[in-house]
Parts: sequence; structure tokens; C-alpha cells
Amino acid sequence: MSIYLDHNATAPLDGRVLEAMQPWLTGVHGNPASVHRYGRAAQAALETARAQVAALVNAQPAQVVFTGGGTEADNLALKGVCGGAPSGRVLVGALEHSAVLGPAVALAKRGWEVEYLPADAAGRYDARALERLLAGGDVRLVSLMLANNETGAVQPVPEAAAIVHAAGGLLHVDAVQAPGRIGCNIGTLGADLLTLSAHKIGGPKGVGAIVRRGDEIHLLEPLIRGGGQERGIRAGTENVAGIAGFGAAAAAARTQFDVEAAHMKGLRDALESGLKSVSKNVVIFAETVERLPNTTLFAVDGMKAETAVIAFDLEGVAVSSGAACSSGKVQPSHVLTAMGVPPALLRGAVRVSLGWGTTKVDVERFLGAWRKLASALSKGRQVAA
Amino acid sequence: MSIYLDHNATAPLDGRVLEAMQPWLTGVHGNPASVHRYGRAAQAALETARAQVAALVNAQPAQVVFTGGGTEADNLALKGVCGGAPSGRVLVGALEHSAVLGPAVALAKRGWEVEYLPADAAGRYDARALERLLAGGDVRLVSLMLANNETGAVQPVPEAAAIVHAAGGLLHVDAVQAPGRIGCNIGTLGADLLTLSAHKIGGPKGVGAIVRRGDEIHLLEPLIRGGGQERGIRAGTENVAGIAGFGAAAAAARTQFDVEAAHMKGLRDALESGLKSVSKNVVIFAETVERLPNTTLFAVDGMKAETAVIAFDLEGVAVSSGAACSSGKVQPSHVLTAMGVPPALLRGAVRVSLGWGTTKVDVERFLGAWRKLASALSKGRQVAA
Repeated sequence: MSIYLDHNATAPLDGRVLEAMQPWLTGVHGNPASVHRYGRAAQAALETARAQVAALVNAQPAQVVFTGGGTEADNLALKGVCGGAPSGRVLVGALEHSAVLGPAVALAKRGWEVEYLPADAAGRYDARALERLLAGGDVRLVSLMLANNETGAVQPVPEAAAIVHAAGGLLHVDAVQAPGRIGCNIGTLGADLLTLSAHKIGGPKGVGAIVRRGDEIHLLEPLIRGGGQERGIRAGTENVAGIAGFGAAAAAARTQFDVEAAHMKGLRDALESGLKSVSKNVVIFAETVERLPNTTLFAVDGMKAETAVIAFDLEGVAVSSGAACSSGKVQPSHVLTAMGVPPALLRGAVRVSLGWGTTKVDVERFLGAWRKLASALSKGRQVAA
Repeated sequence: MSIYLDHNATAPLDGRVLEAMQPWLTGVHGNPASVHRYGRAAQAALETARAQVAALVNAQPAQVVFTGGGTEADNLALKGVCGGAPSGRVLVGALEHSAVLGPAVALAKRGWEVEYLPADAAGRYDARALERLLAGGDVRLVSLMLANNETGAVQPVPEAAAIVHAAGGLLHVDAVQAPGRIGCNIGTLGADLLTLSAHKIGGPKGVGAIVRRGDEIHLLEPLIRGGGQERGIRAGTENVAGIAGFGAAAAAARTQFDVEAAHMKGLRDALESGLKSVSKNVVIFAETVERLPNTTLFAVDGMKAETAVIAFDLEGVAVSSGAACSSGKVQPSHVLTAMGVPPALLRGAVRVSLGWGTTKVDVERFLGAWRKLASALSKGRQVAA
């Protein structure tokens, strides 16, 4: 059995999640749009989950729009706010996930002016740079993530929200990595739209949500059209089982967050001490800023991330080279590029992301594998020299 | 326990489906984009399902693009083929599901000329009308369903395909109601793009697919952008559990189709005889043409569909008033309107749709409920007269 330290790619299912899903995956169960008792029961399950997901981010249930995942939610946010107009200005962060960068490129093709908010060397957005860009003319929407999926760096979202609102814009926040790890209150953040993903917080894959601050935030242009589901914002028969699982995961993430965050942070700090005690030249990205308590992105001069991930896998340790979505590609991380990381480290970043189930023994096994790999790397350097 | 006769809205899960899903809903399981063993195992599950879904419609696995449902697949077909160009002509059937009509309206807003293929009184598209419309100028895409979700009427798709191809167009076929009930071979149909939905064939909700005839059919404009999943055609972490369930449902639908179709047809014919023997003035829509073996859409002068569905529900029988997606609305069915059904019957259509698990006893219970309802209706008429 391999140990799993890739929770930012996808998290294991919480036991209560399958329990919540099971009734909707067994025998007869209705379409939530149906009038009969099977339909009404399915509709009730959606509303229970909607309240659970809303509570996770301190929103009203009516503001939760379920989607087929976080990527769809990000696409819906950008298209929903901007898609109705032929042109305008939109600002997206340079550290954003491809689920935000992708629809931004589509808007640019349709005539929108798309600009990118730069990040500093520590992996955070700079509020002053945001002010400067907003001063350049009316911006309809700004999209910034709450915590970066690769480095874990927590972004100054409340500060950015105040700046965006003062300039008359709307703020979309991709918060998929946050719940269960750091606070994620839509009001405190100042977000107008918030993206969530079930499978990042112990729910099933294929379910997400876009949460609106209130009725005054309009998603005028749907992404998927058809039936009147989700108040006409997202057509298609709802994934009742998946949504029920999302609700259960949200409830679990909400109730245990403090204890779990502290647990993960303790283990993560031990892991980082261990990494450094093995190899003095380890670089931990975004080390100087607030990060998710479960995430370490590190590199060593001379290490190739792809090779390292395979070496770890052979040792029974599952880690990642940057974002899961781009792990098949050979391009260097756009996040590290935006941070100005030097070429020698750019292709060598390995991400370790812990979960609530991670133990001290898991961290020790990781460090054991790292000792072997670091020693091989060091020998390789001696041979090459 | 209520009996369920609303399989066109959503079908009960096949036992093998949950079995196939369970490993991906329990404990640690990877993101298919991850390089480590958990990721590779998830990727392998996707490919097994892809082969199963491809086999259901006699396509190549590489031509199956998984989506978050049938509605998304329909949207992707229309946007994928037409969305890249600023204008052109597209032809959609008047009997289509809102999942096709919705994106067609969006194309019209973007400058496309959208025309509607009329249907005859029996609920079928007319090949001559298709020829006439195609003669009006270059049509990029024609979208026609294989079997209507409300009446069950099977459309002349192979004939339409020949006409569309002779005119240089592409044919998209929404086939969500077909598998397990009638033949659904992409080659025999002549479809260039085919939409499937898992939950209509015993799989989970929230999963569908668009199947391409071959590599020469390009979906140039994705609906959801981000990571490189599904060959760049559909971004977002794949719903591994749901897709595995879809694969199992496809395999089950494929192997048992003949026996099950005959079983359902026998019961459906008995149900229709019973309906008529109770009320001589029952009208069965699309009765004169080939229909899905499980579907009956009927009306009686003076019956209101909404009231009838609730009356059936109180008697423990789950049926529907037309499509599930529009059952919350009070508008009359666009399908019956397109068929020229007179106003007296337009708001009174009740759909009964059987499944492989439906029994003789279920049909008898339905007829028992119908006897009570028909008697009440008849008394109501006498009182009103």
C-alpha cells in the first residue's frame, strides 16, 4: 500500500460521504425535476446539500449553484459575468488555475481585454499592482484564488476585494483548495463569487459549486443551457448522489477544520524540517508567506520533478509535480514562472500535500524515500562533476 | 412503496453500476491526471469505461468524450461545431430536448441563423421538409434526436443522415433515450456526433458523453476550458466513479437489450390496451409510428396533466407530465405543440415510461389507479355538463 501525499490533486473520500450518496446510487430514485414522490425526495436531498455547502462558506443556500466541478464553476463565473457583453476588461491573477486562465483566453478571443495580475517572488499577489491595473480603466471582473494549489500561498483576498469594489468591479475567488484547511467565509473574504470543488474536500469528483454573495450578483450568461435547473443558471439533471456527497463533505470539513488544520500543520512543519536536514540546499517555495497548512512545494538544484515523482512512487509515496491537471505536460509551472523562479529550479518542483488522515509514520516514510533520492541525486552530481 | 413508471426521466441504478463505482468512492483514489500509481489506476478506470461506452454505440473508444451529463454533451456538440465561427446556418428539430434548443438559441444570439425542422402529426420528422430546408443554403450542423423523450417516437435518423451528408452538413443525434431500448449504432445511424446520458440507461446522474464518428469530426470550441482532460475537449477532473458506473451501465444495456426491449414492449402494449378498455376516448400520441418499446404518452379530453400526475402519485404510481426537465413549468409541451395537438389535449398528456424491472403487477397497479382517475374525470364531466 502506497502512502498518499497528493491531497491537493484530490482528497480521499470521507466515510460519511459515501453514506450520504448511497441512497441515490441504489435502486429507484427520482429526477429532482419530477413532481412525484421520488422526484420530491431527490429535490429535498439537493436542498439539504445546498444548505450544507452554503454553511461551509457562510452563504445563503439560495446562492449556491451546483455544477459538474470546480473547473465548470470557474468557467461559469467568468462567462456568466462577462459573456453577455461583447467587450470589456477583465483581470485574472497570473497564479490562477488553468480553469480560470482557460475561460479568460476565450474571453480575449471574443474581444475582451484580459490582463494578468503579477505575483511577487514569495508567490503572493501584490495589492499595489492590483490598484495600478484597476486605475487603467473600468474592470468588470477580477478573478483571484484564495490559496494557490501548487505552493499553498494564501492570497490577500480581503484586501484585494476592498480595492476591486472601490474600483466598481466584481471579485471572483477560486477557493477550491481552502475549505477544511483555512477560513473560507464569503463575507469576510469580500468575494462576490466563490468557486468550490467537492473532491478537494473529501467529496466525490464531478461536483462543484459557484456561490454568489447575494441576489445582486448576476450570472447572465449560462455555460450549459437547457432545462430550468439551478434557477436557470445551470441546465441538466442534477447529480443527486454527487451533490449529497458534496453536502456531507462540506459538513465534515466545517466541523473539524480547526483540529485538522493544526494536525496537518504540525506534520507539514516536521516534514519540512526533515527535508532540510537531509539536503541543505532544499528550496521551499512561498516559505515566507502564509500557506495552506498541508502544502509543501520544494525543489533542489539538479532534481527533475518528473523523475522525482516516479522515484517516490517506486518507494510507495504518491506526490506530484505541481498541479495534477498539468502533470502530464512537460512545460514548467506557470505559477513558478510568475514567481520568477530561476531556471535551475523551475523543472524540479515536487509538491507534497497532506490530508486529515496523514500520520507521523507517513511523513517518516516520505522522508525515508527522500533520503534515498537525495543521496542518488548527490552521487549523480558527483559523477557529472 | 410507490411503483416507478418514469424511466424516461431517470432510470433506477443497475446493481452492477454501484459495484463498479464503489472502489472510487471509498478511501484513497487518485486524480487521473496524476503520474503516481493512484493516478494511473484512476486513468485505467476511465479507459475501461470509455471502451464500454464506445462498444454500446459501436464507436472507437478514442471518440468518446465524457461530460457532466447529456445536457452538457448536447451543448458541447452545438457549440463545438458552430461556436468557432461568427455566423452560419444550423438546423434543429422542433421536437428536440431543451438541451439542444437552449444552445441553439444561444447560437442565434451570436449571429447564427437557426431554423427548426417541423414534425408531422404522428410525431416524426419529415425527410422532405429536411431536404427543402437544406436546399435553402449551406447548413453547418443539423441536430435531430433518435427517439423523443415524451412520445417515444423513433425518428428517421439514417434517412436524415443521408440527406444532411449529401448537402455537406454534419448530423448531431441526441440518443439519450435509445440505448437498451432500440438499436443505437453510430455507423448505422449515420450520426457524426451522438449524445449519451448515463442516468437514462441505469448509470448515475451527472455523467454523459459526446461520441464522435471519427477524428475527422472536430469539436473546435470547448464548452469548459482549463486542464487538458478529454484530449482538451472537456476540462476538469474526471468524475471517475460516475464514469466507471456509466461504463458498467453501458455494458449491461448492451448485453440485455433484446430481451429487455421485448419484455417492456409486451407490458407497454398491455398497458395501452388497458388504458383504452377503461376510457374509449384515450388518445395515445405517436401511436401510428415506431416508438420506444417502453413509452406511452396519452391524454383524455378534460384531464389536466399536473392534476393527473399528483392523483397517480397519491395512488402510489410515479408517472410524469411530459419531460421531467419541464415538469415544474406550466407551459404546454413544445413537442405536442409541434405535432399540432389540439388545445383540449395539449395540457393533459401523461407519460408512462417502463423499465427493465417493470412487472405485470406494476402495470395492473397503474391500470387500477387509472380506473379510479378516469371514473373521477367522467363524474367531473357529468357535473360540469
